[in-house]
Amino acid sequence: MAPKFELKTPKGTKDWEGKDMVVRDRIFNAITTVFKRHGGVTIDTPVFERREILAGKYGEDSKLIYDLADQGGEICSLRYDLTVPFARWLAMNRDVQNIKRYHIAKVYRRDQPAMTKGRMREFYQCDFDIAGSYDAMLPDVEVIRIITEVFNALGWQGTYTVKLNHRKILDGIFQVCGVPDGLITDSRRGIEDKIRTISSAVDKLDKLPWAEVRKEMTEEKGLDGEVADRIGEWVVLKGQKDVLEKLRSDEKMAANESMKQGMADLDLMFTYLESFNALDVVSFDLSLARGLDYYTGIIYEVVTEGSAPSTTPAPAEVVPAPNKKKSKSTTDPDEDRSSDPSVGVGSVAAGGRYDNLVGMFSGRTQIPCVGISFGVDRIFSITKARMAADKSSQQVRNNEVDVYVMAFGGKGFTGLLKERMSVCATLWEAGIKAEYLYKVKPKLPNQFKAAEVNGVPFAIVLGEEELAKGQVRIKEMGLQEGHPEKDGVLVSLSNVANEVKHKLLRKQELDDMMVRADGLRVVHGIRGEEVKPEEVKPGEAPAAEAPAAPAETAQP
Amino acid sequence: MAPKFELKTPKGTKDWEGKDMVVRDRIFNAITTVFKRHGGVTIDTPVFERREILAGKYGEDSKLIYDLADQGGEICSLRYDLTVPFARWLAMNRDVQNIKRYHIAKVYRRDQPAMTKGRMREFYQCDFDIAGSYDAMLPDVEVIRIITEVFNALGWQGTYTVKLNHRKILDGIFQVCGVPDGLITDSRRGIEDKIRTISSAVDKLDKLPWAEVRKEMTEEKGLDGEVADRIGEWVVLKGQKDVLEKLRSDEKMAANESMKQGMADLDLMFTYLESFNALDVVSFDLSLARGLDYYTGIIYEVVTEGSAPSTTPAPAEVVPAPNKKKSKSTTDPDEDRSSDPSVGVGSVAAGGRYDNLVGMFSGRTQIPCVGISFGVDRIFSITKARMAADKSSQQVRNNEVDVYVMAFGGKGFTGLLKERMSVCATLWEAGIKAEYLYKVKPKLPNQFKAAEVNGVPFAIVLGEEELAKGQVRIKEMGLQEGHPEKDGVLVSLSNVANEVKHKLLRKQELDDMMVRADGLRVVHGIRGEEVKPEEVKPGEAPAAEAPAAPAETAQP
Repeated sequence: MAPKFELKTPKGTKDWEGKDMVVRDRIFNAITTVFKRHGGVTIDTPVFERREILAGKYGEDSKLIYDLADQGGEICSLRYDLTVPFARWLAMNRDVQNIKRYHIAKVYRRDQPAMTKGRMREFYQCDFDIAGSYDAMLPDVEVIRIITEVFNALGWQGTYTVKLNHRKILDGIFQVCGVPDGLITDSRRGIEDKIRTISSAVDKLDKLPWAEVRKEMTEEKGLDGEVADRIGEWVVLKGQKDVLEKLRSDEKMAANESMKQGMADLDLMFTYLESFNALDVVSFDLSLARGLDYYTGIIYEVVTEGSAPSTTPAPAEVVPAPNKKKSKSTTDPDEDRSSDPSVGVGSVAAGGRYDNLVGMFSGRTQIPCVGISFGVDRIFSITKARMAADKSSQQVRNNEVDVYVMAFGGKGFTGLLKERMSVCATLWEAGIKAEYLYKVKPKLPNQFKAAEVNGVPFAIVLGEEELAKGQVRIKEMGLQEGHPEKDGVLVSLSNVANEVKHKLLRKQELDDMMVRADGLRVVHGIRGEEVKPEEVKPGEAPAAEAPAAPAETAQP
Repeated sequence: MAPKFELKTPKGTKDWEGKDMVVRDRIFNAITTVFKRHGGVTIDTPVFERREILAGKYGEDSKLIYDLADQGGEICSLRYDLTVPFARWLAMNRDVQNIKRYHIAKVYRRDQPAMTKGRMREFYQCDFDIAGSYDAMLPDVEVIRIITEVFNALGWQGTYTVKLNHRKILDGIFQVCGVPDGLITDSRRGIEDKIRTISSAVDKLDKLPWAEVRKEMTEEKGLDGEVADRIGEWVVLKGQKDVLEKLRSDEKMAANESMKQGMADLDLMFTYLESFNALDVVSFDLSLARGLDYYTGIIYEVVTEGSAPSTTPAPAEVVPAPNKKKSKSTTDPDEDRSSDPSVGVGSVAAGGRYDNLVGMFSGRTQIPCVGISFGVDRIFSITKARMAADKSSQQVRNNEVDVYVMAFGGKGFTGLLKERMSVCATLWEAGIKAEYLYKVKPKLPNQFKAAEVNGVPFAIVLGEEELAKGQVRIKEMGLQEGHPEKDGVLVSLSNVANEVKHKLLRKQELDDMMVRADGLRVVHGIRGEEVKPEEVKPGEAPAAEAPAAPAETAQP
């Protein structure tokens, strides 16, 4: 008589479990390792903030914020990102004038989901930010270096690009091309600076052709057609120092104050990127604008295969005019768009410099900041697709148990329960991961099956006769027929923990050698050296002792 | 012209930062290590659930659930614990018939906070649960074993007690003593089973004297005084097998069906606890009842020094009668009660067997479960108080950086920025944690100061003359005057990463030896062997190179 539940998680959220969880944890580990290598320390802020903290920070996207119900007391909302809470924290902690902080946590956006592409309503961000007043571009270039270390650690060498731009260069382009100063009323963004509103149109160039973006600028935002065309000539440019030279060779650009500041920063950036061996992944892309309002300097975004949509959508679906009849695909904003080819994974990391955000809270003290946010769910969905392609997901184990403790016997077999429990206790005491079957009188095939399901590498098998002599059998799982230790080796019960440790170590060394011998730099999409030894056991053969095999009779 | 913000986190929540974060992470690591040792795998569920999933699971405490605002679409609430989402997950994943799952995540309760005692509105739980149909008491006893391993890993040997009871034994006592079957209308809990309502009164015996509990039973819940007195004779008992013998020697108790089942379980439990060397921490305590409704078998709760309030409150403050004038201390439910001596830290871990919860979702399939939830914030607040007492918190480092890369020079010093960046890139490439000062021309004392603030163990010092010879200086920080390597050693620039690795390894070995030589089993409240080597550097001397020291002139 259970009530009728709709058994599901809320829309846009999911449970993480099994091998997905193992893979995601490896991504977290790879990222955290890089963050710590650069001196990062972590802070943890509440999942919800007082609503006034979040207000006025996200422009058009504020409508996506999740609110808590008013149950008396404070009015709160779930955090939309980790950057605004970090700025709030800096403003509250005036003794902290500089910090490299990282934060790995869930954020919340009431957006239309596309689950299999990692576009979720509850999703993880991994943020690294450098706060403090320093010499120009030094923190900024370290963030770019961190991006390269993270994606190299994930085995993505050669498959990603860091798109780079500068808000002051963009502003310079808009000013020189003739975007007028002042405010404008945008149907979607409200009253806004004209330069920002044109900037947000430019930002769509990765999803839309220029003709569509031009249309938005002129028809929706009232920009003069000639001004738009002049902008169009510049924002299609991408490259490295050559783009900088092109800007500098234009007299008007070279004379613009905002442009001058941006170009000086970019000059330094290119020099420093060389010192950090990080120049080759960078594309100076004048179309990159970033949606959020709080950026003030360098901005960047990491794209990879799968970031872009596989088809260009019909313009009407992406930029519906206010009173237009809705097309079928946009009827339900809760509907999952995973199978919509016009939806790509999007950028896998993004960030930039925001020098004024802390001041929005503190009122007095400004603390300049620069940072990066990695979108782990999107990185995961790409990693998973690659693992499925090379079938490496089959090698991922669910748990990390090293030893399964079993017992067997003939007629009158008691189950040796106490003895199994006592051996387990001894192994746990020695820090060894061990399990046994929760049955008083288990059958041997069932015990082997339980070990094999989780790919446990060793079994300890207790038999009454051997126990009477103070001995137990250690058996490596998955050995080939004919291997001298196929039936296991007898060891003294009093020394069982040391024997197991020794065997685990030897197996680990052999597995490591195999990894090196294979030149297997990248395992499961994660670079080998970043992964803790215990987590990768590529030498592990799949279950060889099938439960059907009469292992019981094969034992002495 | 920043708006007037009240710069704070929502009531009952806090930011975690600095050394607190490091200590909390160590607690997480210690707990996770134990969970994995027992074959645990982790799942991750959303922070909010559809409201109907949480409804009717928490009895009287349901009023503490945080709701999300209705913004169209589904109606959701923040999770109240990790157990109900786990049961929902099990019901949704019918292929999973057994699992050992752990889950470390935040949960939300709109309760009156007492922050310094770890009573928060947003707080972490670390849950381990064993789901599946197994032989009696085998999963249950492993959970108790896990409790002992966790608290031993935290260095709490001899300072905690696992209070143990059984719902069926409690029910047996209530039946034999004469609590009538049937329903009752409780002013706070609504219509309810009489046995459960008396049970919840008994549960208050750790905070209130018997006289008060008796009053609640008779005056509020209408129980016959004689029945209450008979209950009172039993529920004050605590011990181990002796209590079981006492129950068994009572003819009526021994004949009660519910009691018989509970006693059979307890018999097995005591036997198995011996096999796991876990008997001595357990107290069979007939007053333990646990508030939540979903428990069906064994229940337990871990208490330690600080769990109980330091004073017994005036009864009126704790059990206000419905229409009573509120005392001053209960006026504002948002008010922090940290300084209220009648508030203790409470239990630091609790759990039990819940065989019917999954069935409340699935309707058909029951999956019996048993589990434990560790209250990390409470464990943290006790750990922190102990660390403050023995001053070990001074030894906790904020970040994990191994090497600070510096430069110095005389007149015409360029700052050697490119060279510093290039050395950092080399170290990062080798996986070494390194930092440098974000200044083009830094002063040497400022660089040493930056290294010392974070207790960085090694410095690499670049000088123009040495660089010209292809050499750099590695300097161990904090060496005594007169130490042969006080001024550092010159190494080849081309081999700098290997030299640093070698020195880090040697330092680690020396530190490990010192730990062993001191017999220092417990470091910072965490047992040494559970902590990764890099996290504990007790040999680290506090900053010796004061920025005032003219290190620049001391260098060659």
